[in-house]
This record gives sequence, structure tokens and C-alpha cells, in this order.
Amino acid sequence: MNAYSSMSKGKLEKMYRSVSAHYEICKTEGLKLNMARGKPAKMQLDMVSELLNVLSSPEDCMDDGIDVRNYGELAGIPSARRYWAEILDCKPEQTFTGGSSSLNFMFDVISRAYSHGLLHSPRPWCKEEKVKFLCPSPGYYRHFRVTEFFGAELITVPMTSEGPDMDLVEELVKDPQVKGIWCVPKYSNPDGIIYTDSVIKRFANLKPAAPDFAIMWDNAYCVHEFDGEYVPFPDIIRLCAEAGNPDMVYEFASTSKITFAGAGFSVMASSVDNIAYFTKLFSVQTISQDKVNQLRHVRYLKNKAHTLEIMKKHAALMAPKFNAVATALNEQIKPCGFAHWNQPKGGYFVSLYTMPGTAKRALELCKQAGVEMTPAGASYPYGKDPDDSNIRIAPSLPPVAELEKAMDVFCTCLKLAALEKLLAN
Amino acid sequence: MNAYSSMSKGKLEKMYRSVSAHYEICKTEGLKLNMARGKPAKMQLDMVSELLNVLSSPEDCMDDGIDVRNYGELAGIPSARRYWAEILDCKPEQTFTGGSSSLNFMFDVISRAYSHGLLHSPRPWCKEEKVKFLCPSPGYYRHFRVTEFFGAELITVPMTSEGPDMDLVEELVKDPQVKGIWCVPKYSNPDGIIYTDSVIKRFANLKPAAPDFAIMWDNAYCVHEFDGEYVPFPDIIRLCAEAGNPDMVYEFASTSKITFAGAGFSVMASSVDNIAYFTKLFSVQTISQDKVNQLRHVRYLKNKAHTLEIMKKHAALMAPKFNAVATALNEQIKPCGFAHWNQPKGGYFVSLYTMPGTAKRALELCKQAGVEMTPAGASYPYGKDPDDSNIRIAPSLPPVAELEKAMDVFCTCLKLAALEKLLAN
Repeated sequence: MNAYSSMSKGKLEKMYRSVSAHYEICKTEGLKLNMARGKPAKMQLDMVSELLNVLSSPEDCMDDGIDVRNYGELAGIPSARRYWAEILDCKPEQTFTGGSSSLNFMFDVISRAYSHGLLHSPRPWCKEEKVKFLCPSPGYYRHFRVTEFFGAELITVPMTSEGPDMDLVEELVKDPQVKGIWCVPKYSNPDGIIYTDSVIKRFANLKPAAPDFAIMWDNAYCVHEFDGEYVPFPDIIRLCAEAGNPDMVYEFASTSKITFAGAGFSVMASSVDNIAYFTKLFSVQTISQDKVNQLRHVRYLKNKAHTLEIMKKHAALMAPKFNAVATALNEQIKPCGFAHWNQPKGGYFVSLYTMPGTAKRALELCKQAGVEMTPAGASYPYGKDPDDSNIRIAPSLPPVAELEKAMDVFCTCLKLAALEKLLAN
Repeated sequence: MNAYSSMSKGKLEKMYRSVSAHYEICKTEGLKLNMARGKPAKMQLDMVSELLNVLSSPEDCMDDGIDVRNYGELAGIPSARRYWAEILDCKPEQTFTGGSSSLNFMFDVISRAYSHGLLHSPRPWCKEEKVKFLCPSPGYYRHFRVTEFFGAELITVPMTSEGPDMDLVEELVKDPQVKGIWCVPKYSNPDGIIYTDSVIKRFANLKPAAPDFAIMWDNAYCVHEFDGEYVPFPDIIRLCAEAGNPDMVYEFASTSKITFAGAGFSVMASSVDNIAYFTKLFSVQTISQDKVNQLRHVRYLKNKAHTLEIMKKHAALMAPKFNAVATALNEQIKPCGFAHWNQPKGGYFVSLYTMPGTAKRALELCKQAGVEMTPAGASYPYGKDPDDSNIRIAPSLPPVAELEKAMDVFCTCLKLAALEKLLAN
């Protein structure tokens, strides 16, 4: 099979008829498959079931002399703070451990920046004439939406294989209206890129014009390798401090993809001063976090070494799925030459770039054939991919057999959309 | 013993020397007692331990076909919504069930009103010239603080034995800058007053000038009798709808004082339109609530009848503590004639009114003798009791023997502060 670009119109038409016929067969199968969300599979959830049973008596609920069943310890139990400090390589006093959603922490930081300002804000962001926020793209649509929700102008920063385009970032932060940037430093969503040490160092050494510039460092996949050994990462909080920017970064993580999705526990980590500032703000909205669930997790996960052992078991379940994606793409799409994609070793996504101008159409075709994908453009500010090319594949949820079926439909739709475009020109 | 008011100066001086001597003895005992917070006692927490064990296997985690261990169901699992609908006598579709903190729900409603506006807001509250909020007082300081945090002017509304002074409320809501009111309709914090049907009806029939006027209906003690049978309450959501104010009320509750404090699960209930509006807003900040803990609770609490059975067991543990408070006050303070207090049949507090101008001083004396109480004035807007008279007693946490000791110190301090004042005049 040759690349589409080298084919004559006649050959393309013949190819179109053949792909079209296969697509029609797919449609008749009444499939209902989903590769839209980074949801863990049932086997992954089953694998951590012992979490349900680690606390079973009143005695189990005592920790460091604290009864986790009662009010108190707004920033979380000390053992939970120690747990995250070890994972993130920071200090316990630099952490605030929370409930089941790290996204809620990120939302609260931006929300409070809007209503009250951050530690070094001259005024609340709602009193600023304009707030701009940098969005390395493709990125995570829920991040972008939080800042859009609070009226910020979203500015696209292209991703490179080493992380966000730092030349551009360094230039853009000279604008005092630029108040922050969204980052997923390890296995970025969706590209699966690990920011290089050089990129991370440049982040820590940024010289933003805004005194309250915030690096929103969502370390969502900090221990989430599915291929190969654990990849260490530098402590961004320390690096920022060393660079004279101690209060510039807010780091986030959760156990949503370590234990139960949406029922784990989360952390925000930052300078001691930022944690003190936010502890004061958070005291207005809550008396204490769910410390029972925090302790349940600490008892089950124990420490970093044991967490990495559990992640190895997740990897064993995840790897075959990413392999199935790679196999389908290599066999069905690579020869056609109109698309490229990443090959991550961790995280939850494969990011594919199909023929520009055909991503939306391809996913429309998928939908009609019963395969649901993350909407095209979702990984860009305002949901608009200027090239209409990027598609996020989330292979974690379906069993491998379903995934193979879904990938066959997906590849067929990619081809059909590309052929439609080539033949329309 | 006679009332202080009828005593001669000489008698008062003699009394002062005697009370003072007893106080000095108390101080030497190095006590460390706490009646400051409405925290459940260890025996109450132990009593609901079976909650820890109701979910133990993957199969246990399936509910109505939903795997509670994975993302989804932003408004909570259907069984959790049904549970609260039965307790609050509303409809499941009128509920949004959340995480461990109902205060966080209240905060989020006010926070979103500030940044984005409520369903019928002409503009976000941060764009209003001024926002005023009604605070029936004494009331719950955390309520008042939320609205203060967002810059609202707090307006004190006196409490009567039937609920807030509704003549005044009806007058005040004619001001379009008055955007809402805080209410604890059953066993109000701290007075323990149950709003009468007539008061509740007048709430539902309010005709506020502000189209987005919000009744913040914190039904924190909806099933929390410790003396006598369960007292039913009307469904405020239905009453508001019948009165032509379908979107005026937001009701809140949680299991913090049914199971574990700060580790239960919460609910916000309102009109279907309000729930739809807030579900959209909440979708920006979180993917889903902790459904595992929701299911754990639903399986353990079962339904209203079973919840009321559990509340009977709490009552058996709480009643002796409230009796100890009443006994001490009746024996030591009543004859002195300078204070009065309520005798609630539910909730978590006894609200006492001591000689005006002496509450702060009395609690300062308590502190010096090792007894911690809720700060004087805390139950009033801005923490300022204009009469310096009200004191909130929270007897739930200490064992009865400790409580009796603490009450002896407390009564001594009340008397000492009153005598100091009388002798200074």
C-alpha cells in the first residue's frame, strides 16, 4: 500500500470505495465502544480492592494520635502530607492534602485568585482589566475551561517534544496581563511528553512581569509509567525557590489513577507561604477534609516504593491496550502517510495528528459507527484546533478485544475522512 | 441564695470573695477541657463503626449498574440522591449529592453567585455596587464568614423563639441589595430553635426585591433529636414553589453528625432548574464526587427509618451531656438571676445569655482555668455581640465527668465576671 499523497485520483477513488464498504459493514454491527475518557478499567479497580478493607475498626482510625473520624487537621493528616511529600519529593509542610478531586484544588486556586487574589496579587483578578493565561496545546481541556470560566483570555503555546515552547513562554510572560500557565509536566495530556530538565529549569527561572504569575503544575501522571521503569522528576517547588521564585508554582496530584477514579485523595503542594495563605482561605469553605479516606489511602499505599509496585500492576493491565493502539495505527494508518502520533511510555493517552481539516469529520464518522472519542479540538483553547488535526485516544477503559474493534473503526474513519478531503480537492 | 440584683454591696463583696476562692482552686487543677465545638464524641463515632465495613469487594461497589469506583455521575449516585430526598422530603432530581462538607456546598453557591451570578441574577454579585446578607443572630459564624469573605454587608436579624424576626425580614428584603439570608431551620445554631410552620411559610412567601434572593437553608440538624421523638419538618422547596418562588431556596445537609464528622457525605437540594444550573457550574470544577463514600453511606444508613434508629443511639449518648449542662446551670446559675438559657431537644448546642457586658470576660476567665469555649461574640456578624452576653456551649465532645468539671469552672467564671461588673459600678 502506498501513501495517499502519491496516489492518482483513480486510485484514490478505488481506495475510497473499498474503505467506504468496510465502514458500512462496521456501521451495521451496532457497536457501542468508548475511547473518550482516561478512565481506569474494571480490572485496575478490582486490583486495588484491598483499599476497601484497610480500616475496619475504631482503633484503625487513630493516626499520629488523631482520630480521623472527627473534625480537625484542615490541611490533612500528617501521614497523608508525608506520603505526598515523598511522592513529589517536597516537604510535608509544603503540602495541603484534600478530597477526591485535584481538579477542584486547581479550580479553587484560580477561583480565589479571581475573587481575592493570590499571595502576591496587587488586586483580585476580577478587578484586573484583563487576565491572560497560557495554554500549552494540545493540553487538557478541563484546565483551559477553568481559566475560561473566570474570563481569562486563553493563549495557545505550542508543545514541542521537550515540553511547551519555552522561547515563546519566556517572551509572553513579559506581558503583566499574563497571569499563569497550565502544565502537565510528566506524560502530558494528551501528548504523553515528559518535560525535559532544561524546560523545567527554564520554568523555575521565568521572570514574569506579573508578581502573581502562577505555574499550575498538574503532576497527574507522576508515577504512571506503563512501559519501562519509573522516571524520576525534579522537585519544581525547590527549583523555583532556588531561582528566587519561591511562590510561583502550585503542584497538584491525586490517587484517582492509582486507586479509585474520583474517590481517591488529592494534594496541592507549594511554598510554605502559599500553603499558609491558602489554608487561611480554605478555612472559610470547609472544616476539614475527608481524613478517613486519606488514612485509608495512606495505610494501603504505604509509601512511594509500595505505590510504584502497585503502578507496575496497573502497567501490566495498561500496556496491552497501548500496544493494541500502536499495532492498529502502524498496520492501518502508517502506510497511508497522512497521520503521525506519539508513543508514550506512561500517562493515559495517545495523541494523533491526522490530515489537517479532517479530525472533526473522522470523529463524526466514528460516532455514527458507535465509537465515542474525545471531541476533536477538545485539547485546544476554546475547543478549537486551528488545524482540525489532533485526536486524543484514550485506550484504558475498554477490554483489549473491544479496543481492537474500536481501533479498526477508528482507523477506517481516519482513512475515509482523509480520502473524502483528497477527492473533494 | 438570692439573685445578685437584690444583694447589698457588702453581700456582693462577700460572694465575690467566695467565688474567687473557688476559681483559684479550679485554676490550680491544670484542667484542659473543651466545650468549644460541635464535635461528636468518640463513643458516637465508635457506635457507627460498621460503616467502615459495608463495602469490601468489587461486587459491593456496583449500584444501579454504576461502578462507584470510576468517574461519572456528577450529581451523585441515584441511590444517594434518593436517600437525601427521603430525609428532606423532596425529590431525587432536586438533589445534588457531594463530598464530605456541606459547608463547601454553601461556600460554592455564594462563591459562584459572586463570580458568575445565580440563575436569576442580573449580573454576578462582584459587579453589584453592594450586596447585603441577612444574618439571624445568634447564628453560625461559619455562615456569616462565607458572605463576609465575599464582601457582603452582614445585617443582623434578631432571633425569636419561633425563628428569625419575620416582620423585620419581610421589611429588609424590599431592599434590592439584600441578596439572601442564612437559616438553620431546625435546632438553630446555637439557640436550638425550631422554626415554626408559620415562620417557614413566611419564608416561602417572601417577596424580595432582588430577583436572585437566596435563602440558604442549612438543615444541619434535620434528624438530630436527643430528647424525644423525631420532629417532622415541611419541605421548604415545595413550599417555595407553591408560593411562586421555585428557585429561591438552597437546602443543605450532611451526615457529619450522623456518621463521621468531616468524613460523611453532603447534599444540596433545590429546584430542578437550580440543580441543572449548578450541575453545569460544578462540571467545571470536578469530574465526579466520591461515590464510593456515598455508596458506603447509603448501604449503611439505608433509609430514613434506619437513620432515625441510629439517631436514637446518638441521642442516648448526647442526652446525659445536655442534662449535665442543664443541671449545673439550674443549680449554680439560676438562683443568681443574671442569666438565662435555652433547653433544646436536639442539635448540638446550649445558648446562654449571661449578664450583658460580661461574656468576654467570663470566657477569658474560663481560658485561664483551662476550659476552652467558643469565643464570645462568635455567633454574631463580624464576631461582635452588641450586648456581650451570648455564649455557645457545646457539650457533645467531653465525657460526662469532664463535662461536669468544665461546667463547674464555667459557672464559676460566669458568676465571677458578673460580680466583677456589679462591684465595679
